[in-house]
Amino acid sequence: MTRLASAGGDTSADNTDSGGGATIAPRRYDLGAAPGPLDRAELTALDAWWRAANYLSVGQIYLMANPLLREPLAAGHIKPRLLGHFGTVPGLNLVWAHASRAIRQRDLSAVFVAGPGHGGPGPNACAWLEGTYSELYGHISRDSDGMAAFFAQFSFPGGVPSHCAPETPGSFHEGGELGYSLLHAFGAALDNPDLTVFCVVGDGEAETGPLAASWHSAKFINPARDGAVLPILALNEYKIANPTLLARIPEDELRALFRGYGYDPVIVAGSDPAEVHQALAAAVDGALDRIAEIQRAARDGDTARPTWPLIVLRTPKGWTCPPVVDGDRVEGTFRAHQVPLPNARGDDEHRAVLEQWLRSYRPEELFGESGAPTPELDALNPSGERRMSANPVANGGALVRDLRLPDWHEYGVEVPAPGAGSHEATRVLGGWLRDVTAANPDNFLTFAPDELASNRLQDILEVTGRDWQAEVGEFDVGLDRRGRVIEVLSEHLCQGLLEGYLLTGRHGLFTCYEAFIHIVDAMFNQHAKWLDASAAVPWRRPVPSLNYLLSSHVWRQDHNGFTHQDPGFLDVVLNKKPEIVRVYLPPDGNTLLATYDHCLRSRHLVNVVVAGKQPGPDWLTVDEAAAHCARGAGIWEWAGTGDSTGSSPDVVLACAGDVPTLETLAAAAILRERLPDLRVRVVNVVDLMRLLPREEHPHGLPDREFDTLFTRDRPVIFAFHGYPWLIHRLTYRRANHDGLHVRGYKENGTTTTPFDMVMLNDLDRYHLVTDVIDRVPELRERAAGLRQEMVDARFRARAWTREHGEDIPCVAEWSWPEVSL
Amino acid sequence: MTRLASAGGDTSADNTDSGGGATIAPRRYDLGAAPGPLDRAELTALDAWWRAANYLSVGQIYLMANPLLREPLAAGHIKPRLLGHFGTVPGLNLVWAHASRAIRQRDLSAVFVAGPGHGGPGPNACAWLEGTYSELYGHISRDSDGMAAFFAQFSFPGGVPSHCAPETPGSFHEGGELGYSLLHAFGAALDNPDLTVFCVVGDGEAETGPLAASWHSAKFINPARDGAVLPILALNEYKIANPTLLARIPEDELRALFRGYGYDPVIVAGSDPAEVHQALAAAVDGALDRIAEIQRAARDGDTARPTWPLIVLRTPKGWTCPPVVDGDRVEGTFRAHQVPLPNARGDDEHRAVLEQWLRSYRPEELFGESGAPTPELDALNPSGERRMSANPVANGGALVRDLRLPDWHEYGVEVPAPGAGSHEATRVLGGWLRDVTAANPDNFLTFAPDELASNRLQDILEVTGRDWQAEVGEFDVGLDRRGRVIEVLSEHLCQGLLEGYLLTGRHGLFTCYEAFIHIVDAMFNQHAKWLDASAAVPWRRPVPSLNYLLSSHVWRQDHNGFTHQDPGFLDVVLNKKPEIVRVYLPPDGNTLLATYDHCLRSRHLVNVVVAGKQPGPDWLTVDEAAAHCARGAGIWEWAGTGDSTGSSPDVVLACAGDVPTLETLAAAAILRERLPDLRVRVVNVVDLMRLLPREEHPHGLPDREFDTLFTRDRPVIFAFHGYPWLIHRLTYRRANHDGLHVRGYKENGTTTTPFDMVMLNDLDRYHLVTDVIDRVPELRERAAGLRQEMVDARFRARAWTREHGEDIPCVAEWSWPEVSL
Repeated sequence: MTRLASAGGDTSADNTDSGGGATIAPRRYDLGAAPGPLDRAELTALDAWWRAANYLSVGQIYLMANPLLREPLAAGHIKPRLLGHFGTVPGLNLVWAHASRAIRQRDLSAVFVAGPGHGGPGPNACAWLEGTYSELYGHISRDSDGMAAFFAQFSFPGGVPSHCAPETPGSFHEGGELGYSLLHAFGAALDNPDLTVFCVVGDGEAETGPLAASWHSAKFINPARDGAVLPILALNEYKIANPTLLARIPEDELRALFRGYGYDPVIVAGSDPAEVHQALAAAVDGALDRIAEIQRAARDGDTARPTWPLIVLRTPKGWTCPPVVDGDRVEGTFRAHQVPLPNARGDDEHRAVLEQWLRSYRPEELFGESGAPTPELDALNPSGERRMSANPVANGGALVRDLRLPDWHEYGVEVPAPGAGSHEATRVLGGWLRDVTAANPDNFLTFAPDELASNRLQDILEVTGRDWQAEVGEFDVGLDRRGRVIEVLSEHLCQGLLEGYLLTGRHGLFTCYEAFIHIVDAMFNQHAKWLDASAAVPWRRPVPSLNYLLSSHVWRQDHNGFTHQDPGFLDVVLNKKPEIVRVYLPPDGNTLLATYDHCLRSRHLVNVVVAGKQPGPDWLTVDEAAAHCARGAGIWEWAGTGDSTGSSPDVVLACAGDVPTLETLAAAAILRERLPDLRVRVVNVVDLMRLLPREEHPHGLPDREFDTLFTRDRPVIFAFHGYPWLIHRLTYRRANHDGLHVRGYKENGTTTTPFDMVMLNDLDRYHLVTDVIDRVPELRERAAGLRQEMVDARFRARAWTREHGEDIPCVAEWSWPEVSL
Repeated sequence: MTRLASAGGDTSADNTDSGGGATIAPRRYDLGAAPGPLDRAELTALDAWWRAANYLSVGQIYLMANPLLREPLAAGHIKPRLLGHFGTVPGLNLVWAHASRAIRQRDLSAVFVAGPGHGGPGPNACAWLEGTYSELYGHISRDSDGMAAFFAQFSFPGGVPSHCAPETPGSFHEGGELGYSLLHAFGAALDNPDLTVFCVVGDGEAETGPLAASWHSAKFINPARDGAVLPILALNEYKIANPTLLARIPEDELRALFRGYGYDPVIVAGSDPAEVHQALAAAVDGALDRIAEIQRAARDGDTARPTWPLIVLRTPKGWTCPPVVDGDRVEGTFRAHQVPLPNARGDDEHRAVLEQWLRSYRPEELFGESGAPTPELDALNPSGERRMSANPVANGGALVRDLRLPDWHEYGVEVPAPGAGSHEATRVLGGWLRDVTAANPDNFLTFAPDELASNRLQDILEVTGRDWQAEVGEFDVGLDRRGRVIEVLSEHLCQGLLEGYLLTGRHGLFTCYEAFIHIVDAMFNQHAKWLDASAAVPWRRPVPSLNYLLSSHVWRQDHNGFTHQDPGFLDVVLNKKPEIVRVYLPPDGNTLLATYDHCLRSRHLVNVVVAGKQPGPDWLTVDEAAAHCARGAGIWEWAGTGDSTGSSPDVVLACAGDVPTLETLAAAAILRERLPDLRVRVVNVVDLMRLLPREEHPHGLPDREFDTLFTRDRPVIFAFHGYPWLIHRLTYRRANHDGLHVRGYKENGTTTTPFDMVMLNDLDRYHLVTDVIDRVPELRERAAGLRQEMVDARFRARAWTREHGEDIPCVAEWSWPEVSL
């Protein structure tokens, strides 16, 4: 087993000016000689490019002036706050340099994913060396002024963050929260047969759950249809303050792990630049040869699951930085994780070592008089869009093709009268999605954590199967090497692969049980923030929206327990910038169709759609659904009584969500029958954002329109799908806010039947009627008898479920009365 | 490679009454003969116990009467809604039976973790067979009446859920959301040297991210100090509708994967009960022998990292259920996942097959006249607390020992005057936690995702190291085979291991960057719901609280980007039952100490504490901190002006969180100096729950006390740590709600300096002063000049950071003025 600790020890003895006893010393940087595929000139040139990238990285972390060290380094040249992470950067730059060599040799279309945290200086430096930075940001020119600006902006107020971000040319991967690099890489490779993704995975990141599972993603890559991912595990052995687990297991165990994940790992280890260059060049060549072979065979019809190549790159953390600082070993240890010389501004000795460190890269050989990279370095860059920093795949919006969407109206259900029929809403949607899938055979994917059929979208499987490259068992059904559905029992994998697919310009959908979508709260946050931040980057084009379809929702947890109940994803979503989030709660199949058509046409949003999979009443015809969804919220005149559209109903029954709508209409029906002169208005809300003030959300209703729906002063009983508080939050600034009484999900649930569930949450029809009686003053006495009846009816219904295990027939068989108004 | 598909095919031919062409047929259940460690009598008895458990499982899913089939099965005996999952149950019951055999033979103290989803019928059945169910639930007696009640309650309104839950005897693991079984198992084993945990992991669950990473948890198990986990991968090959990934890779790849994870896997595969019994018995014997050997060696001083045993159990999904239903293969396929005969109530043929299926287990041999299990079965149960359903470890609250807590007052910092000194709050806490750790050497653990030192708790490392059983590199520091800190770069692992540790009655703490705690939102939800539901189970004892310490919080994201900013975990937490959640925002080191002392003494709560790690002013002495934290919210008289404690200040400046407190006091200082006659009251809130009405939370302030702090009608400017909306939500029902103006985190962030960050969010001192001027009518004209000064000061401060990369000195060096009142 190659142990870098001892290699680092040798380095210390060989390379520090003052020997093992040095308390602080720069590394002497020498390119030795080693046998391998690179000839001397190639080796020298490649190493020079790497040195340049490393120099530019160190410069970003420390310097705010004097970028080329053309004067002695002074305290004033150094940033007052040193914020950046050097440890992982040399490895990133090394892989970039070698990937570029392969791109030139093979004319590859390739992108780079930088998994390790806060590695921003590396890809920034590579993009500047490739010229892309200057093409996209005029003030970051390719000269000494531009270099100074480039250094100064890094991790500086008003500048760029220390990790890869939307501002980073060539990145479609946010480098903030760790764990998703491989997923983004594999998502990008899907349906991109000519793409190669060089994906560097940090050994810290490799400890996360999502990353540990995502090695399996290769099992969804069809080498005939998809591009390739070359994972490179950057095994620099340390995290912030600890060694990594994968660095401290025997090498045969490490190899076994990756063989078990389905890869053929090659280990490149060392701390001598020449040796590592040669070994890495050989490993990259071998891996790309193998990928080409796999793709050729598959495209010739071979359907055996391939064993993909993978590289383990074991080099010292903070490689090339000062080996020892203040008596502590730094290079090759966790102390190189962030800023190896933290006192370079204030401490003369530190500053002197920083200067020697920077000069050890020999900037005078790398940059010309103007400060631009030398022609020799330029010659190593791939040309135009072959540069990984300029590949349009990483600016996916630039490549996006609109979906071909069949006319959703033709997939709607017949609705002879409101509530006359009943359908499973998501199954209705599934018919349309089937044809969306068929019409967009290389541009649209559906992801599900083993819940596609459970969520009633199985009609999609009429035109495709589930993507599956592993073995097929005798009784397996519906598996398909070219499947347009990806099912894996990991919400993280579904979300991450879809993100990678969207960020590179394609379209898709993630269907999930509502309760389990919290698993990806943090991933949603990061993606939403990417959308928000990238909207402010002028050269980024809008990408297709991230579309959720949440079903098996909180109100129909028929055979699941308390832990499966949580509608709070909506709360998480609404904490993000209003401009980029949308929440829809269509009450039936036709409104779900209209909603989803809108979502699949949208760009650069997160659309959260919650819809039922259980049979439920059809309320609106296709045309009514189109109009209702266009409005986003509206009065259902046919459901109210008397002059319910006028300015002063006695009460407003509002609802959002399919089950709340059902209970609201059942309550309205009771009121119509029992209190026929009560003016009851029924308002249904599909687009939750309509509730927000116009100033706070682009979909927000103007106050006047809001008041037209909800009145300024009448009691409003609002039956809501989620936690009730959200409605208060959205309507907080509305005139009638104090008149609003919200019923929604309470943390009370247990195993139960459907109506028992709504009773448990006081959202049942009987409770809603009681609410009306309690809130309309003139009813208190007049309807006291009805109120008691409602209480009795609830007890009866509750007792029935306890005895019979199903809902009382008068509820289970209830349907909207056909009343001509 | 053993392929169950073909084994299943054989079964179909051998065991269906009507041959391969049957459209529906029961399985004939025969116990054959096979060589192995079990003699004939032992094999027969073990198999009978398994049959009994399977019978009781099928009974739970289908029957609401006629539990022993003493009359012909009629439609009315069958539940109207069939809700349960049979597929995984035979495997769970099989492992339970074999574990019990080993427990008897070796006198083990063991618990069982059922990872597969909705496997509830299995552990329920085993607990009933062991008698525990009847001991804990009087009406579920050990006779036919009790059996009927036991069957009827399953997945029935008012009954128990279909997965393992707090109601399940012997379970400390919620079976709802998948992915955490191994973590709970390993967490239970920590510091439990005599415990063996049989942990069944479903192959569906194994696809999740948390589970994929958690195989590495064995690397934190010290065989000298800790108990053992025996993982059993239940490879029944199918999820809801798909094969599993691990079932469709070659067997050598599967073995390599587990060798790579650090285990020595043994594969037990088959579909013949006798053969599987023999193979599993041998595998369990071998594994437990190996565990005993590892533990003996370690306890004798051997420090080599062991290779732990692991069993892969490859048996048919829904094993022993009808092989074919309506012409479709069911046993051994995904169709056996849930209810194999979904129409048993309505369809005579299905019902007849159900009856034959139930009778195939030969209940008449298993249960006596009374309905109790036969003495032969009883003899197989371990005795008393050795029964896995009765092991007190699974009811951790029964075993909990109070922590020995050093007097926190002695760890406080000297505060000669408010704001005179400055400390890193979490470092102050770290000194106390060091001694908590030392005083509770087998009862308290700290978990961190490589952020312990970053969050300034490194003083703990003075008395212990980081738990580490893998190899140690030359430059690794602070690793310790008996370490009381567990660091792994996975929030899932930290949370899950801690949950397992707490649920089995020990104490701990999870420290995490605030931004990344969203990664475990879903785990938090499930744990909170476990606490809530278990509080209603009479025999469950309260367990120690789950304590979070969130630092590197949103206001001091100095070198991180936009994606690292999210204070929304508080919103997720506050969606749970108020009784079980607490949120604390101590403003300095002494208040943090007081808060954490309270948290570590509490039981059965989730305590979320957010505190800064950067140097910040010390506001309160130890005694003041004790009093302030006891109140939870209070007026800081010394910070206000004039008669600020009286009933009518001109304005209230409220704050919660360390940075908001700092800015609020800076604003108060400006107002004192510039508008000395303005009556400004400063209120600090440590315990966020105090804001809720008394009726909604046990910590809620009575309205009268709330009004005493916040007035009923004066403007309140509230500077808050999180998203501002949360304060509105908490104070929604308070008299002065409309007077409340909240400033908090907005989704605007970018890389910046500390004061730039608060300016970006309009939470800076200048903005707060402006707010006061805008909201106190008499100031509008009088203080117009001051207002303009504030606006100018902001611009100046902003421009300074852009130029210098650090905060303007008048802010960076600001301290609270020493004013004698």
